[in-house]
Amino acid sequence: MTAAMPRPAALIALDWGTSSLRAYRMGPGGDVLDTRHLPWGIMRLPTPPADGPAPAMPASGFELAFEQACGDWLRASPGLPVIACGMVGSAQGWAEAAYLDVPVDLRDIGARLTPVDTRRGATLHIVPGLLQRQGLPNVIRGEETQVVGVVSGEPDAGDDLLVGLPGTHCKWVRVQGERIVGFDTFMTGEVYGALRGHTILGRTMSDAAAPDDAAFQRGLEIAGSELGRGGVLSTIFSTRALGLTGQLAPQAQPDYLSGLLIGHEVCALRELLDARGMPSRIVLCGEEDLCRRYARALPLAGLPAPRLAGQGAERGLWRLALAAGLVTDTQAAS
Amino acid sequence: MTAAMPRPAALIALDWGTSSLRAYRMGPGGDVLDTRHLPWGIMRLPTPPADGPAPAMPASGFELAFEQACGDWLRASPGLPVIACGMVGSAQGWAEAAYLDVPVDLRDIGARLTPVDTRRGATLHIVPGLLQRQGLPNVIRGEETQVVGVVSGEPDAGDDLLVGLPGTHCKWVRVQGERIVGFDTFMTGEVYGALRGHTILGRTMSDAAAPDDAAFQRGLEIAGSELGRGGVLSTIFSTRALGLTGQLAPQAQPDYLSGLLIGHEVCALRELLDARGMPSRIVLCGEEDLCRRYARALPLAGLPAPRLAGQGAERGLWRLALAAGLVTDTQAAS
Repeated sequence: MTAAMPRPAALIALDWGTSSLRAYRMGPGGDVLDTRHLPWGIMRLPTPPADGPAPAMPASGFELAFEQACGDWLRASPGLPVIACGMVGSAQGWAEAAYLDVPVDLRDIGARLTPVDTRRGATLHIVPGLLQRQGLPNVIRGEETQVVGVVSGEPDAGDDLLVGLPGTHCKWVRVQGERIVGFDTFMTGEVYGALRGHTILGRTMSDAAAPDDAAFQRGLEIAGSELGRGGVLSTIFSTRALGLTGQLAPQAQPDYLSGLLIGHEVCALRELLDARGMPSRIVLCGEEDLCRRYARALPLAGLPAPRLAGQGAERGLWRLALAAGLVTDTQAAS
Repeated sequence: MTAAMPRPAALIALDWGTSSLRAYRMGPGGDVLDTRHLPWGIMRLPTPPADGPAPAMPASGFELAFEQACGDWLRASPGLPVIACGMVGSAQGWAEAAYLDVPVDLRDIGARLTPVDTRRGATLHIVPGLLQRQGLPNVIRGEETQVVGVVSGEPDAGDDLLVGLPGTHCKWVRVQGERIVGFDTFMTGEVYGALRGHTILGRTMSDAAAPDDAAFQRGLEIAGSELGRGGVLSTIFSTRALGLTGQLAPQAQPDYLSGLLIGHEVCALRELLDARGMPSRIVLCGEEDLCRRYARALPLAGLPAPRLAGQGAERGLWRLALAAGLVTDTQAAS
C-alpha cells in the first residue's frame, strides 16, 4: 500500500439495517476516525453494472455495498477486523446470525458472532439478534448492540435500567446487572407512517414548516387522560374530527397524531412496568428529535425523566469486538 | 311514458358513500322493488365522455352517477321523491348537509333534509350527519340512517340500545328512548388495511383460502388477556414474531391480526361502557361476516351477546322519508 492513512485503524464497524448502512473506521481506543452513511440497506442493495463482460463470479449486492462501505479502508489496512450488526444478520441478510435467547449476559453476545467470508478475503463478523420466548415471542436485531453501547457508558451500569430505542419500531429493553432480561416492541413509528400515508387521516393533513410542540403536547395529554380511554384505535379519529370542526389546523395534525400515538405507547409501557416493577432509571437511545418527544411523554405517564444517550451503535460494536477478541483493550476507551 | 313498470314505486333511496352507491326503488309499503350497486362513490365518480360536441352545461360526476343510478326509474315515474344518505352530504359531496348535534331525537333527523335540485328536475333530499361536541369531537355520516332503520325494527325500541356498525370505521351508537345520545368511532378496519398493505406485517403474510377461525380467536384472546396489556401498538408485532419463530403460518397471520385489532377494540369499548353504564342490548348492523367476528369478540370482553340486524340503510331511508313527508304511511311497513 502506497497511500498511508494519517491515523492507525483498529476496527471497521458496520451498522447495517433495512434501509441504510453506516460504516465506522475506528482507532485503537475505540474512537471514530471516519464515518460513512450509505443508502444500501439490505432491502435496497446496489446492483452490478449491466454492461461490460460478465465476471466469472459476479459480486452480490452485499459484496458491492461492502466494497463501497469499506473496500478502500481494507486496502489501506489489510487484515483489519470487521464487525456488523443489524438486519444484515437476518434471514433476508447476507448470512443468518441465529438469535440468542434472553435473558442473556451482555458480555456473552460478543462470543457468538457469525463469521462470513467476503470476496476480498476479509471476514465479516455478524452480531446475533435476541429472541424472547416468554409470553408473546419477540425479536430484536441491531438494538442489542446499541444497548451494549449505552450500558458501557452508564455511570452505574448493572443496576436496573430500561433502555428505550425509538424509531420505526420502538424497543424497550430491560437491563439488570449486565443482563438483558427482556424487551417490548411498539410499532409506533411505522404505524404513524401508515396512518399518515395510507388512511383518511392523511387527507386533511398538510406539512408543518416546523415541529408543532403545542399540537404534539395536546395529543400526548389526550392519550393520557380520560378522553384516551377508548384507546388508540379510537382517539386517532379525533385528528380528523377536530380538523372538520375547525379545532385543529391541517399543519398541526401530523404532530397531534404523533402525540396521540406516543402518548398511548408510554401509557401502555407504564402498565407493563407497574406489573413488572419500575426500573431505577430510563435511558433513551436514537435520533435526537424523536428521543426528545419520548422524553416529554414519559413523565406525563408517571415514568422517570430519561437521560438521552445518542445513537450508541458504534460504541456497542466496539465493545462487542473487544469481547470477541477482534480488538484488544490496550488503550483507554473514549 | 310507454314502458309501464310492473309495480308502483313510492320512493327512490340512495345510500351514497365514499366508495360506492347503492340505489333502491321502494314500493308504497317500504318494500324494496329493485336494487342497484354502482361503483360511483363520491371519491370515484364517473367522468363525462371526452368525445362529441361539448354540451352547453356539462353534467357533473354527481349528475352522471345519479342518472345511472335512477334516471330510468324517474322517467318511468316522474315526480318520485328521492332521498340519500352518506358522504354525498359531506363537504366533498354533492351538497353539504350540515351536521345535527347529538343528543338528537331520531324522529327529528327526517325534518332536517337538505334539498338539491338535479338537472333532470328531480329534487334529491340529503340526510344530515351527526356531530358530537362533548369530549373529543366526533362525526358520523350515513350510519345515523342505518341506526334509524335498526331501531325501527327493534321489538322494544326506545329503551337503551348500543348499535355497532362495523366497517372501515366501526361506529358504536348509543340510543336511549328514541334519542341518539352519543357515539364512538374506531378506525379498526382502515388500520387493518394500512397495517397489512403498508407495514412490515404484510411482508410475512399470505392470503388464506378460507377464514381461519382459530387464528382469529387466538388474536382475540391475546388482546383480552394479560399478554395484551402492552396495547395494540405492541401486540400487533407478535404477528411477525410468531411467524419468524414458526408459530403462526403466513396464511394464518391476516386473521390473527384481525383478531388482535377487534379484540383491542371491544376491550376498549368495555372500558368506555364501564364508565358510562351498560346498555340493555347490543345490535350489530353491517356486512354479515364482519358482524359475526364482532359477535364472537363481544362476549369475550364481558359484553352482552349481540343481535345481528343486517344493513339497515334502506329501512332507515324509508323511515326518514316518512318523517319528512316525502312518502305517506298508507300501507303497513315491511
